Amino acid sequence: MNFLARQKKLREYVATSPFDALLISHLPNIRYLCGFTGSAGFLLVEEAGSVFFTDVRYDTQGREEVKGAKVIIARKSVLSALGEWIGARRKKWKGWTIGAEAEHLTVAEKKRLADLLPSGVRVRNAPALVERARTVKDTDELDRIRAAVKLGATLFERALAVLRPGVRETEVAAEMEYAARCAGAEEMSFPTIIASGARSALPHGRASEQLIPSGTFVVCDFGVILAGYCSDQTRTVWVGAASGADAEEARHAYESVKEAQEAAIAAVRPGISVGEVDAAARKVLRKARLGRYFTHSTGHGVGLEIHEPPRVAAGQEDVLKPGMVITVEPGVYFPGKWGVRIEDMVAVREDGCEVLTPTSKDFMAV
Amino acid sequence: MNFLARQKKLREYVATSPFDALLISHLPNIRYLCGFTGSAGFLLVEEAGSVFFTDVRYDTQGREEVKGAKVIIARKSVLSALGEWIGARRKKWKGWTIGAEAEHLTVAEKKRLADLLPSGVRVRNAPALVERARTVKDTDELDRIRAAVKLGATLFERALAVLRPGVRETEVAAEMEYAARCAGAEEMSFPTIIASGARSALPHGRASEQLIPSGTFVVCDFGVILAGYCSDQTRTVWVGAASGADAEEARHAYESVKEAQEAAIAAVRPGISVGEVDAAARKVLRKARLGRYFTHSTGHGVGLEIHEPPRVAAGQEDVLKPGMVITVEPGVYFPGKWGVRIEDMVAVREDGCEVLTPTSKDFMAV
Repeated sequence: MNFLARQKKLREYVATSPFDALLISHLPNIRYLCGFTGSAGFLLVEEAGSVFFTDVRYDTQGREEVKGAKVIIARKSVLSALGEWIGARRKKWKGWTIGAEAEHLTVAEKKRLADLLPSGVRVRNAPALVERARTVKDTDELDRIRAAVKLGATLFERALAVLRPGVRETEVAAEMEYAARCAGAEEMSFPTIIASGARSALPHGRASEQLIPSGTFVVCDFGVILAGYCSDQTRTVWVGAASGADAEEARHAYESVKEAQEAAIAAVRPGISVGEVDAAARKVLRKARLGRYFTHSTGHGVGLEIHEPPRVAAGQEDVLKPGMVITVEPGVYFPGKWGVRIEDMVAVREDGCEVLTPTSKDFMAV
Repeated sequence: MNFLARQKKLREYVATSPFDALLISHLPNIRYLCGFTGSAGFLLVEEAGSVFFTDVRYDTQGREEVKGAKVIIARKSVLSALGEWIGARRKKWKGWTIGAEAEHLTVAEKKRLADLLPSGVRVRNAPALVERARTVKDTDELDRIRAAVKLGATLFERALAVLRPGVRETEVAAEMEYAARCAGAEEMSFPTIIASGARSALPHGRASEQLIPSGTFVVCDFGVILAGYCSDQTRTVWVGAASGADAEEARHAYESVKEAQEAAIAAVRPGISVGEVDAAARKVLRKARLGRYFTHSTGHGVGLEIHEPPRVAAGQEDVLKPGMVITVEPGVYFPGKWGVRIEDMVAVREDGCEVLTPTSKDFMAV
């Protein structure tokens, strides 16, 4: 990972911005900029260089992992170490403005920081610069994301091997998560969703103790973290006999969602807005008279975090660029009955897009 | 869970506080107060009652789970639904002050909220009231915690069944996590730490691809979430022959940490400060000439979150009360060599304390 280039870009921003330094407090942003993977730290970026503050638990790990920044181990709190460090340089810092990550810094942290800083040093809200930089993935990141998606996709095969009427939802999740770990995943990128029957109509129905019924849908939404990067995939399978009126209605919903998902993917290319991608999916479902059952947005960015900008939603104006990675995941939900969602991860390329998820989207009954 | 009593207590606070309403944004606090388990929501508590705001993804789930509060489903963002709701009541709310959770609300959220509110309604920082209430667990909570700890402890038996020289750290973690899922755990309460050899000297060495070496320690720190409540436990085992000078030094460190841990547990009772519990552990390790290798605090509260107040650390003045649940987990770490940590969960009782973790702490070689 080219941490030095990422920090350099941020330092160039500082040079021309109203800020004299940026305080990065969001851990995925810190990881992106300097490689630190622990759970506590602040990265202070000024034009001349970067300083990273962490606590004693990360003494060895911090020194090993952090690239392009001086590492300071806090004896008390990380924030007070930062305050002391700036305090010792109060002459140079007098009149300086620190840009803070307003979307992540808590109100209490900002107050504590202001109290710790020497007089004449101000804290102001900075825009979400690192998040914006992170939306476009570099080659190393795309490689890691491809590997995570590939590993993630193998879990669906594992799910199909155990998913039957009468099996507990959590059993399916357990098998998938075990396979993920054995294949080298660090952890799941979010709580595994195995939602059967009426629970499949809950867009966030994480695996429960419910036994999977017959003659209904099961939504499987799952992902792994591999070398820091997330995968995210959804497939919906029919359990039981795929005949009769119920199954026919289900089939119609499934094929409509699939068509909507493919239409959205077909829209993905540099220069179009994420709102247009969302509209492409919504148009198909509206035509199939299912528009009002598609209650959530079409997708989101993925990378070091499972949910990153851009939000692929109605009216959103972010414009796609080569290197962006998003999910495309329309769904329809009939409360009390069942739901269907199909989700792939897609990388924007100069010539359109690359669908990263290799799994078939054909209707499937088990 | 007695959600109504919890909200009543908070409403009584509102009645006598400088606030006219409290805005609860921290999800574990929301779950504690009204039972909602989803990932997006705000709970507004005024003297007369509570209103819960969530988004469309949690339409069905929110209505099913939330107790003691009116449920509003946001069509746009949850925060703007809140703003609109108060806006529609601007006459009544004029001159009111909303207390926000400063430790959790971000600077950006506070700004957006202020922009959405009608003029004459102010937002001020409220103390961490819900966290304080949560430190003392009620009977239902203690039952759930006991069940989580009991399930968590079984994972160590699973670890011992597979932990051998030459086995990958992640393989041990995979077996434990699979066993946890099969036994009904919702998820792990934090990334499983299986840290062998020099990695055991990292207090936060989550399981890696490293093969477990022989003639060294392996630190196993793990926990589950069951019915919302966390367990947290650490055991350290010696791998390989337990003889020779190395093993003797290891044995000395192990027995000292064990003695320190037991001394800290013996100190736990109502009326003493958490700083005294920390001091009890530290005193033993200082006597054993290991004081400077004990680099972190002695423990922390556990409940709906894996890390909750109080911090059981040097100089901390919080006083233990019956119903509090804390970890007691001293450790010593020799960078580049190995480390030892032993951790139990302990509930404070009228007559002292109850050690919840059932696992033996005797030195063990596999």
